Amino acid sequence: MKHLKLKLLIVLISLTFIVPAWADEGLWLFNMPPASALKARYGFAITPEWIQHLRLASVRFGGASGSFVSPDGLVLTNHHVGQGALQNLSTKDRDLMKTGFYARTRAEELKAPGMELMVLQDIEDVTARVSGAETADMTPAQAAAARDKAIAALEKESTDKTGLRSTVVNLYSGSMYHLYRYKVYNDVRLVFAPEYAVAFFGGDPDNFTYPRYDFDITLFRIYENDKPIASKSYLKWNTAGLKEGDLIFASGHPGSTGRLLTMAQMEFLRDVSYPFTIVNYQRRRALLQDYGKRGPEYARQAQGTLFGIENSLKATIGYQSGLLDKALMDKKAKDEQAFRDAIRKDPALDKEFGRAWDELAQAEKKYAEFFKAYRFFEGGAGFTSGYFTMARSLVRLATERTKPNDERLREYRDTALPALTRRMLTVTPIYDELEVANFTDALIQLQKEFGQQLEVKWLFAGRLAEDIAKDYIAGTKLKDPEVRKKYVDGGLDAIYASDDPMIKLALMVDPISRGLRKRYEAEVEPIEARNGALIARAIFKVKGASVPPDATSTLRLSFGTVKSYLENGKKIPINTSFKGMYDLAAKAGNKPPYELPASFLAGKAKMNLETPIDFIATCDSIGGNSGSPVVNRKGEFSGVLFDGNIQSLPARFVYSDTQNRSVMVHSQGIIEALTRIYGAQPLVNELLGKK
Amino acid sequence: MKHLKLKLLIVLISLTFIVPAWADEGLWLFNMPPASALKARYGFAITPEWIQHLRLASVRFGGASGSFVSPDGLVLTNHHVGQGALQNLSTKDRDLMKTGFYARTRAEELKAPGMELMVLQDIEDVTARVSGAETADMTPAQAAAARDKAIAALEKESTDKTGLRSTVVNLYSGSMYHLYRYKVYNDVRLVFAPEYAVAFFGGDPDNFTYPRYDFDITLFRIYENDKPIASKSYLKWNTAGLKEGDLIFASGHPGSTGRLLTMAQMEFLRDVSYPFTIVNYQRRRALLQDYGKRGPEYARQAQGTLFGIENSLKATIGYQSGLLDKALMDKKAKDEQAFRDAIRKDPALDKEFGRAWDELAQAEKKYAEFFKAYRFFEGGAGFTSGYFTMARSLVRLATERTKPNDERLREYRDTALPALTRRMLTVTPIYDELEVANFTDALIQLQKEFGQQLEVKWLFAGRLAEDIAKDYIAGTKLKDPEVRKKYVDGGLDAIYASDDPMIKLALMVDPISRGLRKRYEAEVEPIEARNGALIARAIFKVKGASVPPDATSTLRLSFGTVKSYLENGKKIPINTSFKGMYDLAAKAGNKPPYELPASFLAGKAKMNLETPIDFIATCDSIGGNSGSPVVNRKGEFSGVLFDGNIQSLPARFVYSDTQNRSVMVHSQGIIEALTRIYGAQPLVNELLGKK
Repeated sequence: MKHLKLKLLIVLISLTFIVPAWADEGLWLFNMPPASALKARYGFAITPEWIQHLRLASVRFGGASGSFVSPDGLVLTNHHVGQGALQNLSTKDRDLMKTGFYARTRAEELKAPGMELMVLQDIEDVTARVSGAETADMTPAQAAAARDKAIAALEKESTDKTGLRSTVVNLYSGSMYHLYRYKVYNDVRLVFAPEYAVAFFGGDPDNFTYPRYDFDITLFRIYENDKPIASKSYLKWNTAGLKEGDLIFASGHPGSTGRLLTMAQMEFLRDVSYPFTIVNYQRRRALLQDYGKRGPEYARQAQGTLFGIENSLKATIGYQSGLLDKALMDKKAKDEQAFRDAIRKDPALDKEFGRAWDELAQAEKKYAEFFKAYRFFEGGAGFTSGYFTMARSLVRLATERTKPNDERLREYRDTALPALTRRMLTVTPIYDELEVANFTDALIQLQKEFGQQLEVKWLFAGRLAEDIAKDYIAGTKLKDPEVRKKYVDGGLDAIYASDDPMIKLALMVDPISRGLRKRYEAEVEPIEARNGALIARAIFKVKGASVPPDATSTLRLSFGTVKSYLENGKKIPINTSFKGMYDLAAKAGNKPPYELPASFLAGKAKMNLETPIDFIATCDSIGGNSGSPVVNRKGEFSGVLFDGNIQSLPARFVYSDTQNRSVMVHSQGIIEALTRIYGAQPLVNELLGKK
Repeated sequence: MKHLKLKLLIVLISLTFIVPAWADEGLWLFNMPPASALKARYGFAITPEWIQHLRLASVRFGGASGSFVSPDGLVLTNHHVGQGALQNLSTKDRDLMKTGFYARTRAEELKAPGMELMVLQDIEDVTARVSGAETADMTPAQAAAARDKAIAALEKESTDKTGLRSTVVNLYSGSMYHLYRYKVYNDVRLVFAPEYAVAFFGGDPDNFTYPRYDFDITLFRIYENDKPIASKSYLKWNTAGLKEGDLIFASGHPGSTGRLLTMAQMEFLRDVSYPFTIVNYQRRRALLQDYGKRGPEYARQAQGTLFGIENSLKATIGYQSGLLDKALMDKKAKDEQAFRDAIRKDPALDKEFGRAWDELAQAEKKYAEFFKAYRFFEGGAGFTSGYFTMARSLVRLATERTKPNDERLREYRDTALPALTRRMLTVTPIYDELEVANFTDALIQLQKEFGQQLEVKWLFAGRLAEDIAKDYIAGTKLKDPEVRKKYVDGGLDAIYASDDPMIKLALMVDPISRGLRKRYEAEVEPIEARNGALIARAIFKVKGASVPPDATSTLRLSFGTVKSYLENGKKIPINTSFKGMYDLAAKAGNKPPYELPASFLAGKAKMNLETPIDFIATCDSIGGNSGSPVVNRKGEFSGVLFDGNIQSLPARFVYSDTQNRSVMVHSQGIIEALTRIYGAQPLVNELLGKK
């Protein structure tokens, strides 16, 4: 019965990918592209070759995106995506964030420690096998465990067979399961990065806004066996530019959207989750800003994290603004009510789907009871420290390894271990003073919120958070990758024999964290999964139209047009130019955040100032799309997505193309700056395919 | 090669069980009885039927002994063996320790909570399968793990197949492995116990001495399905008594002897282990005595534990006196040196066995490094509390259950779980004030010895041991067996979700304990096992004579004669009488520890005062033999072993029959007191087989 329905659903989805009601909305699956919508709206016939080429030219950067832009393994992404690598390659005396970097020869390219890139090789529908693992008599938690086991087996099977990293992706809240297979690359070298000042021109105030003038790009090259790889599927360069109304596509890894969420789930985010997140980010931002005031080297150390926090904070405030928008929420509530009424009227539909909304509401209510504890312990908000994070990974790695593969915590399954182990053994800079500052702050919050918890009493023992933080950071030996290796290799025996304070702390708090996680995985996650899937099916059944799945940090295709919009009655143009950038800097007296680096000041005379630097389009995107290549009909690289305007933030929940725009660095601007400012002719030749 | 040698060894042992050089020494295996020694020395032909009957009439009481003495499941043991049951059946208003107990009818018999008795059904030699699990290229720790795995499999197989509790016993330090199968009984009811005052007449001062006047017996009855079991193999009563020179046998569960230990091992006990144990017992004795001074009810609560500690303390001091006896140790050293010289002279023997002594010495040296930590954490000396013990069992039960059977800590294997679970769910009295006193004392020691250990710092947090103890004892819900059941059933999820302070504490210290245990099981135990086995084989090879294995808490047969001895030139008679008992009480003004209860004072006139109460024999015994039936050639019950004289204590290491004697309650004394003092005619009739 269940399987029949599932098959029906899949047929429905396959047949009905027609234009949705919401214009260019959609973060589409590469194996289910919106072919008829593209045909109907834009007369564009998407071919299997076209889409396969774009898929193989797309590169996954952790939670973000990039693309091959030459046949020699050259990968283009955003500066802010490559920032971790830049920070890791910097020292007190070589600040690549500040100075930028350009490798004039391949020999000068710098290997980024611990960096891992992935290319999606293929996708397989495994819904039948995953959903087939559950039986009608199971509780939601049992069903979740059964599916989880099937997923672990599928992933391991595929990895063992193909050698490719294999991950099952849960789509439409559990209505479909697809197996993604990635080729993984670990030798990634820095080729070019501009100065942070020009990459993030306008700084935090201008983040998530438009018009914008950011040169937010970085180039890496992938090596294997000490040679650049041959990247056959790469994007050719669009030198002709784009004009209003041009159809474009973005290919990247949007992290998560909540467009299929119910009112109860959105209210949970609005009333419980986001308020916590925002306050937490705000406090941490202030902390890191203070830390940076101790001196330039301190500012440098804090920069990467501070950027991340400011970026996330601004995004979250934007999402929250959507949830706090009464008109938007009223409409959502009305739509949901209308849909539920429609379901309720049909006894068969009501029996099948009717309870889903209330059960979801129940699950969110339960989650609210322990959400804060979950974030502090399992989420780590009470223990912000790179060493603590390592210690916990080492403790859990050792523990989970003693279990059969399919009974482990997801992130410690065999398929995940090579990357985890590599991360543990990589040397990346950690700054002990910064660690103390972060850890102290986290402990203060921990005591404030959970001071009555026995474990927290143990940890504090009447001492000050700062003294504890100093002791533990000074005492841990985890800064030495050889020591970490000892724990990776030695397993539980080494962990139990350890006298490292961070290992001991991780051991001490792990039971609480696991308890909370278990609770989440029993009381919240499976209820959300089951009822989310029910609602997705109900939408298919009732609306008979296609709805793209919510984002899941996996490769998606979105489309749209280069399009201006109106703001306060004023037309906002499709692109900005270098001229606008120089003007803005001059107006600000070249002071941060509108300070241009020496290279740009010196090169101004050589520049064609009318060259576009950034541009906008209606294509759907969200965090994780950073670094996404944007291509034209011919599949040519036309720009790299790096942001959305402020109006795009509520699109996490409700998309609209009235003002919502993605923001890209323009392909012409890239060539202009590389040529005139950086004198990077060999790189330009490589991008343009000139010998 | 290894197997061939093992077979040779077994043949040697089977063929050469002739009289050892040390007279009546020996705690013999029931499946390898000293037949030729008995024949040669005493002209006694031991038959398979005789020994099987004695085996099936023997009952295991935890770590002690007892026997069937009627066809209706009646079991006789010592009062001090049954003491736990008496304490558990007592309350503030019904103090069975003080008043004694006699069930005139079966309906009055009292079910002892949590009591478990076992009867050995058969023994199988599984040496080949256990030793066959190791290969020549394994390290000692790997070999130990391999043997352990084989043992777990054997035990599980046997339990699954037979329904009998199956345990593999390691004999001769790993030269032989025998599988013991037990029938387990859980419905055990109290039938008769005398007053503590007469059971332990003379108290701690007279413990481990002779002459002695203790009526140290208790009778239980085993039920199944609410009916007494039919105990076909029971011991008929010897009414005729015994005389000087009579051959007797004892059948029981001697705990451990160290007669095959090397000098290095004995020095470890003398210099590291016993000094720790003795000081610990002395401190705890003082603590419990102080506790008892708070009032009669306090004294009652502490009595059971105090008795146990005084008993063990006296025994350990006795063992230590042997180790501190220069003459004895010099002789042992000389013997060992001579033996090692003999080995060294023969290159083949030297190659095979020569290194064993030095390796053992190395292992003891390593053990000394963490012995104290091991005792405090894994041994629990730092956490003396019934609740903590429960909490740790619950935490470990939940953890170990997630592992495959053969990878678990031994005591959590499937074969051990029914008993463990039953223990967890049984209601037995725990006294919170006593818990606080014990726990406080343990925590004070813990802080003194391990105050610098991070976990101890956490626990203390600047607080006083007593405050911590009060908090944790008051806070734990483990007093409620329903709560314990929740953890037994709920596994790790319930443990992790727990807010019980004892559970949290057990979780917090478990990694340290496990680390120490792992260290012991890697660095000490397997080295002792391998080299102990080597030495045992060397003894067989060189001496060509039989040596009984050291005690292992499993059923053993010893033999000897009723025999007086000389002390300070004075002959110590083979038995004492009730007359001596009354005289001693009168001389002491009937004050403790020579205070006779009202029943004995009132009944004096009816008594035949010449009836023997206690008697002695040369048969080998050690702690665990308490409650052992002593039988004559006809296999008739002639007394119950309850002690050894003070000269018997060093026999843990070196047996001598010059003065070393076991002490028994006499079968005639039992009948006399039951009849005249307690008017227990129905019980007497049952014992004598009269209707």
